[in-house]
Amino acid sequence: MSEQPAGGDLSRLRQLNASAVLRELRGDQPLTLTELSKRTRLSRASTEDVARDLLGRGWLTEVAPASGSVGRPARRYRFNAGAGRLLGIDIGGHKALALVTDLDGEVLNQSRIEIPADAGRRERLAALDRCVARALAGTSGGQIWATGVATTGLVDGTGKVMLSDSLPEWTGVDLGAHVRRLVPGPVRVENDCKLAALAETWRGVARYAKDVVFLLAGVRTGAGLIIDGKLHRGFANWSGEIGALPAAGWQQAPEHLITWLQDTASAVDGFERVFVAARAGDQGALAAIEGYVRDLAVGASALVLTLDPQLVVIGGGFSRSADVMVEPLRRELDRWCLRTPEIRVSAFADEGVALGAVRLALDEVESTITTGLRP
Amino acid sequence: MSEQPAGGDLSRLRQLNASAVLRELRGDQPLTLTELSKRTRLSRASTEDVARDLLGRGWLTEVAPASGSVGRPARRYRFNAGAGRLLGIDIGGHKALALVTDLDGEVLNQSRIEIPADAGRRERLAALDRCVARALAGTSGGQIWATGVATTGLVDGTGKVMLSDSLPEWTGVDLGAHVRRLVPGPVRVENDCKLAALAETWRGVARYAKDVVFLLAGVRTGAGLIIDGKLHRGFANWSGEIGALPAAGWQQAPEHLITWLQDTASAVDGFERVFVAARAGDQGALAAIEGYVRDLAVGASALVLTLDPQLVVIGGGFSRSADVMVEPLRRELDRWCLRTPEIRVSAFADEGVALGAVRLALDEVESTITTGLRP
Repeated sequence: MSEQPAGGDLSRLRQLNASAVLRELRGDQPLTLTELSKRTRLSRASTEDVARDLLGRGWLTEVAPASGSVGRPARRYRFNAGAGRLLGIDIGGHKALALVTDLDGEVLNQSRIEIPADAGRRERLAALDRCVARALAGTSGGQIWATGVATTGLVDGTGKVMLSDSLPEWTGVDLGAHVRRLVPGPVRVENDCKLAALAETWRGVARYAKDVVFLLAGVRTGAGLIIDGKLHRGFANWSGEIGALPAAGWQQAPEHLITWLQDTASAVDGFERVFVAARAGDQGALAAIEGYVRDLAVGASALVLTLDPQLVVIGGGFSRSADVMVEPLRRELDRWCLRTPEIRVSAFADEGVALGAVRLALDEVESTITTGLRP
Repeated sequence: MSEQPAGGDLSRLRQLNASAVLRELRGDQPLTLTELSKRTRLSRASTEDVARDLLGRGWLTEVAPASGSVGRPARRYRFNAGAGRLLGIDIGGHKALALVTDLDGEVLNQSRIEIPADAGRRERLAALDRCVARALAGTSGGQIWATGVATTGLVDGTGKVMLSDSLPEWTGVDLGAHVRRLVPGPVRVENDCKLAALAETWRGVARYAKDVVFLLAGVRTGAGLIIDGKLHRGFANWSGEIGALPAAGWQQAPEHLITWLQDTASAVDGFERVFVAARAGDQGALAAIEGYVRDLAVGASALVLTLDPQLVVIGGGFSRSADVMVEPLRRELDRWCLRTPEIRVSAFADEGVALGAVRLALDEVESTITTGLRP
């Protein structure tokens, strides 16, 4: 085994060896061939061979030898996160957000466009196009190795929106095909709650946990599930939809807040007002939030009792008011659950979903790295 | 690599090779070394080496060469399921059932003892002891390689019952320690619904499915979950307990049947009577079953909407009346679920749970085979 023709298929063994080497090099520290060989348990010869191949493909880069070494310092290598770019898109009810990152998911550029909630399909897609174009400014299209798209609604395997409750006109849109016209490389589309859950285990507050329930608490209520360290999709990718069950309480939950907002009409609009009032001690606002949390907790308890997760992560717009929401939620979970898991609040502002889309793009790249198909 | 000292630790590579060989030999057909080498992708020399080692341990057996072969017929090997025995125990509210099987899970002997529902802990454990002793008659204790125990209630990692709703006096019993005094070898204890789910994917109607909700429909209502081909336990082994949530409807579900039974007092006792009456067209019985199914379906829909399984398996005592229960259940699931999965009825009489306990024992043996610790 020595040089390998560019673009040639790696044998299964070489793929596995290459994966093992790349996995070790995804950490923060550059490694010498000796260290790599030890960690991967590959022979020195195989390690050298794989490293040479990966350097040729641009996936590894050599870094300056450690200073202070005695004798001829050993070459050190690290993963070349700059070799390509990933694009993550979040297209939702009231915004489009696009992130351009390196292969480590570090955000290099981003763009955000507000979209009126009552925008039609065409207007929403046009906003998505503008948002992607802005995010890609300064990045040559060919640099984008893969794209992930997060959308509200249920998505099929090809990237088509099968059903959107919150945006009925969005049902049926072929988002995969639409985005494939904008960027080169593979495009994968997934439900936004699922990708928010993925982002929490990748870069968020759930990094250490294998079983996680992500709860989207906002104008919409939703869930994404991580089971045994992996995003749980289900047989037809329709998992996490307990909100469709009236007995779960999620359909009526926001009504408590809406009623209070309507009863206390004000120039300041939006749900934020009820949380601000509650924080100032307004009894009506506190009662409204209690009602909301009571309903939210029924479906959340159903998820917890079903899965017994290590962790529940609260995300979505209302999670920014965790100070007035989490304690009541914990009390309600204590009421119904046999074992209340740890509850954490998402540390993302509202970029969690788009970051999950980046992770989806990265999954795509990592699977092609190990099958030797790209670049 | 040649002979290996008996009881010596297999190196990691040899463990993997041995697992690969055993996996191929678990099928129905004996295989030649050439076939084994091809299927495992191991070299001929490694295959021979592993086979020799496994023969020495008694895990493989040589079978007569295929008749009609030309020239010197090649030796053929198969897994020696007779090398050891497994014990599976189901200890529940009204019976103890023990199965002795070979290493393929074929039942060689069984014993069953009825236990009054109001029996105390001591009486129930004594019945378990008698049941195990009878099942083991004719089997020398040393032949039992591993034991699985299924119990009602939630179980911790050591085999202690943490909580039993249906048998409060059972809470706190250290079932693992108790059974370890009866048999040699490792003993594992698990919740009965979880093991029933496991049995369905192993030997039952769910063999082809990776994501399965097993629904126990009987005097008790419960659930066991198979996710991505594996039994889902949860962080503290408390998964599948959605029945604890009043909104799931399971707590009140049997009341419909009980009320009908009380209103139509008869010499014939037991739930079976309501199903018999429904089958004969009794409108009251039909309405009672409809009420039961309506409540059962709320929790079942919560599980389906959460997990989007490929399959729902109905087991438990009432599943024997599937003819009057499954269609109403399907209608109710259609009402709440975004996608109603396939529904199948368990084909086990009432030995499914004990068979799941055998599978748990087999898991234990297979994990020790691959780590080379036994026998």
